[in-house]
Amino acid sequence: MKEKVKVCEVGPRDGLQMAHDIMPTELKSRWIAAMAQAGVTEIEVGSFVPAKLVPQMADTDAIVRSALEQPGLRVMALVPNLRGAQAAYAAGAHGVGVPVSVSEGHSRSNTRKGTAEQVEEVARIVEWVRAQERPMAIEPGCATAFGCAIDGEIALDKVVRTAVALAEAGVDAVALADTVGYGNPAQVRALVRAVRSEIGGKLTKLHLHDTMGLGLANALAGLEEGIRSFDSALAGLGGCPFAPGASGNIVTDDLVFMLESMGFDTGIDLDRLIASRELLHEGVPNEPMFGQVSRAGIPKTYRVQA
Amino acid sequence: MKEKVKVCEVGPRDGLQMAHDIMPTELKSRWIAAMAQAGVTEIEVGSFVPAKLVPQMADTDAIVRSALEQPGLRVMALVPNLRGAQAAYAAGAHGVGVPVSVSEGHSRSNTRKGTAEQVEEVARIVEWVRAQERPMAIEPGCATAFGCAIDGEIALDKVVRTAVALAEAGVDAVALADTVGYGNPAQVRALVRAVRSEIGGKLTKLHLHDTMGLGLANALAGLEEGIRSFDSALAGLGGCPFAPGASGNIVTDDLVFMLESMGFDTGIDLDRLIASRELLHEGVPNEPMFGQVSRAGIPKTYRVQA
Repeated sequence: MKEKVKVCEVGPRDGLQMAHDIMPTELKSRWIAAMAQAGVTEIEVGSFVPAKLVPQMADTDAIVRSALEQPGLRVMALVPNLRGAQAAYAAGAHGVGVPVSVSEGHSRSNTRKGTAEQVEEVARIVEWVRAQERPMAIEPGCATAFGCAIDGEIALDKVVRTAVALAEAGVDAVALADTVGYGNPAQVRALVRAVRSEIGGKLTKLHLHDTMGLGLANALAGLEEGIRSFDSALAGLGGCPFAPGASGNIVTDDLVFMLESMGFDTGIDLDRLIASRELLHEGVPNEPMFGQVSRAGIPKTYRVQA
Repeated sequence: MKEKVKVCEVGPRDGLQMAHDIMPTELKSRWIAAMAQAGVTEIEVGSFVPAKLVPQMADTDAIVRSALEQPGLRVMALVPNLRGAQAAYAAGAHGVGVPVSVSEGHSRSNTRKGTAEQVEEVARIVEWVRAQERPMAIEPGCATAFGCAIDGEIALDKVVRTAVALAEAGVDAVALADTVGYGNPAQVRALVRAVRSEIGGKLTKLHLHDTMGLGLANALAGLEEGIRSFDSALAGLGGCPFAPGASGNIVTDDLVFMLESMGFDTGIDLDRLIASRELLHEGVPNEPMFGQVSRAGIPKTYRVQA
């Protein structure tokens, strides 16, 4: 029995929110469906934020509802606050991510709140969600945990304190996010160990960007520390509006290739996943598409190793 | 004291041999000098192969001689056979690499000899070099050790046997080369362990390509297995004429960023190294230049972590 690793596709949110074009709703739904049918079991399909600020995400309610039609797909949405969480709940999302920047500077740019205030917002979300009829998972991420384009180095202690505060607020899971892609494998190991020693299994996921080309090396370091869940974006779309020079998320297609080649089971059919890049390109034709496996072609050794 | 890792720049050989343009000799010399002055202590500056087959390498004799003027630089050349080794010796190279493909198919395409015959060629080189006045290091690489575009999967046993045969032939060091970039981190760990258990410290180096995007993750796996020497190419140039779809070497600039960020000492000034990309681009203006750090800019956290 191969060990399972969960790949959480965040392209429809982290990727498309940065795109110059706005992907039509119907096409976005088809793209999400294609990825789900390729075996992706969790997708962050959008974010509930003011359409005036992020017009690319204006159709998130409709997108959540259509994604829920995919059998077995865990439908996630990003929400910056309680209002967003209420909208996600109304749409029927299975869970929400909430960005909590460990960097004060990034936190204020991103959510207009400091880190501690945003942790309080998460606590309000927990309180409200737990009082509802239907469960909805609350899975915030410690953003800028590996460094910040605004504040520079982020002290490990502050990341640990933020993760602990979130765990104490009663969330279901905590992710560590290298929002701007400044992290390195030694730092990934150190941070995963430090946070896990305080909150244990509540640390579930890494969210990595490939800004410096270290994305998959950082994923490998996390994998070897026991992390079994990773955010990534098809074709490596993504970025951060408050991080100049930051590039996209780690490339889902390449991540799947790495994990399957190493003998892990992602449940994803790489051929079908790569085929779904066409729908993405159709929706945002002006975005650069990254990824090495799709360019080189899946090697003949792939099936043997997997 | 930080632990040292040696970065061996192979761009002037592995990169330029695949380029459409031929870099002028004077510019190539200046580029090599710029990298040496940025702190690169070992450069594979060219190969002694028939100019008719690889015109980009026709000036290797002159390039070796000019590179020898850089203080502290270890000047390496690639040679396919004894004749090439004799030319490298005459030029004054400090050492030679010799490709020995573990894949029979790739070996015959690349050197017109099977694996065993090429090992015999290495033995002839050793015998000849040891009889000369001046020492010259002989450091063959087991090419296609992680898979082959022609022969597919390569059995671990065959890689080990080839490495053992080379060690028994009396070479100074053996490298493992992922010539086409099919390797994965688990395979790197397994192969390094298996080869080292047979030839010990004679296994010194990994030569990795980024075809599938796993280059730095594979380097990390090797690093964690104790490898302290890596081939790489500035801007990720390179490829393999007998490996369709294979892309370039791992990117020197990104590798240095990773190693230094993790607390290793490469001796390389990353700013100056990145600046030397301009000379490369001037010489081969039509080649795509890869690398994430140069694109994003060295982050403000870099100095602190290093």
